[in-house]
Amino acid sequence: MNPRFKQQLLFLTETDQLKNVERVNLIADGSRRENAAEHSWHLALMALLLHEYAGGDVNLLRVLKMTLAHDLVEVYAGDTFAYDTAANEDKTRREQQAAHRLFGLLPRDQGEELRALWEEFDAMETPDSQFAAAMDRLQPFLLNYLTQGHTWKLGEVSREQVLERMGVVQQGAPALWPFVQHVLGKAEEKGYLPATENE
Amino acid sequence: MNPRFKQQLLFLTETDQLKNVERVNLIADGSRRENAAEHSWHLALMALLLHEYAGGDVNLLRVLKMTLAHDLVEVYAGDTFAYDTAANEDKTRREQQAAHRLFGLLPRDQGEELRALWEEFDAMETPDSQFAAAMDRLQPFLLNYLTQGHTWKLGEVSREQVLERMGVVQQGAPALWPFVQHVLGKAEEKGYLPATENE
Repeated sequence: MNPRFKQQLLFLTETDQLKNVERVNLIADGSRRENAAEHSWHLALMALLLHEYAGGDVNLLRVLKMTLAHDLVEVYAGDTFAYDTAANEDKTRREQQAAHRLFGLLPRDQGEELRALWEEFDAMETPDSQFAAAMDRLQPFLLNYLTQGHTWKLGEVSREQVLERMGVVQQGAPALWPFVQHVLGKAEEKGYLPATENE
Repeated sequence: MNPRFKQQLLFLTETDQLKNVERVNLIADGSRRENAAEHSWHLALMALLLHEYAGGDVNLLRVLKMTLAHDLVEVYAGDTFAYDTAANEDKTRREQQAAHRLFGLLPRDQGEELRALWEEFDAMETPDSQFAAAMDRLQPFLLNYLTQGHTWKLGEVSREQVLERMGVVQQGAPALWPFVQHVLGKAEEKGYLPATENE
């Protein structure tokens, strides 16, 4: 077998494990937790349909590649809950190690391309990555709202924390910011954010 | 809320159900059946990494859109097992109805684009769709091999049936055809295709 194809095949088999990486949020019908593979699909579909709201000129092909690859390191590093401060302290170290191991399975050109896209996504400094990251915030935000604030209750998250986390939408998809504020207001009314103190 | 965004949001919420559409094949570790959403992600990743083996010049952006959208109609029509002859008889009718209902949720331009990509994928007459379809055959083929022929045993499928189904790889990704034949030979040796009679 062509050695290049052998490396690609090994990578594609290894990344099948992303289907077993559970996230904290539920799927929309509330029946079970979402896994990182189906999340990545939903995110890519969202980017495909909503890129007209991006803050800057985005290259949809690069954005789709980013969404497909953005959680791959979780195959080794696991999912880190956004509101778990302790787990986020060593997240970078864990994910860098995972990236080295995982992207190293691929032929060098492809490993370097995916790693660079993943680093760009994480840094959120370009229009492509800011838009992709905005979608990556919006997707669980919608699922949390649809499941009566499941994750927000579990993490005892306040409105301020959600607002801060969602802030990237202002840059990455500014046209959707009023929608985020509207949904957050409704979530609060309905008691989905119990950690928020009444003023 | 902007009425266009409202339609997009409804579509994105409705398609979350793809995470509940179970396929017949298992994920690579054999622990459970794969769902159509995570399959779509894996397929898109595969297309991204293997498009150098495509039979013709392919437009990767179009191919990725196809892979992300190719199973969406299963939200309403369910998954149809490739080797179930009876279920495949009314598959077209069921899926056309589902497509009308589902893509009709989107703003017209986007609904028409996704429906056209889905129809193109199904027809397998262009280099983009032939390559995407080849990946859609290869993905469960690999999972079946890794899970000791789970689906082939369940469906009492013969080598000839698998060869026929995999035929599209010859056009869509001809450089991978020898690999398909090689794996099929190994599957037969290992008894993963019990319906194949010994000659």
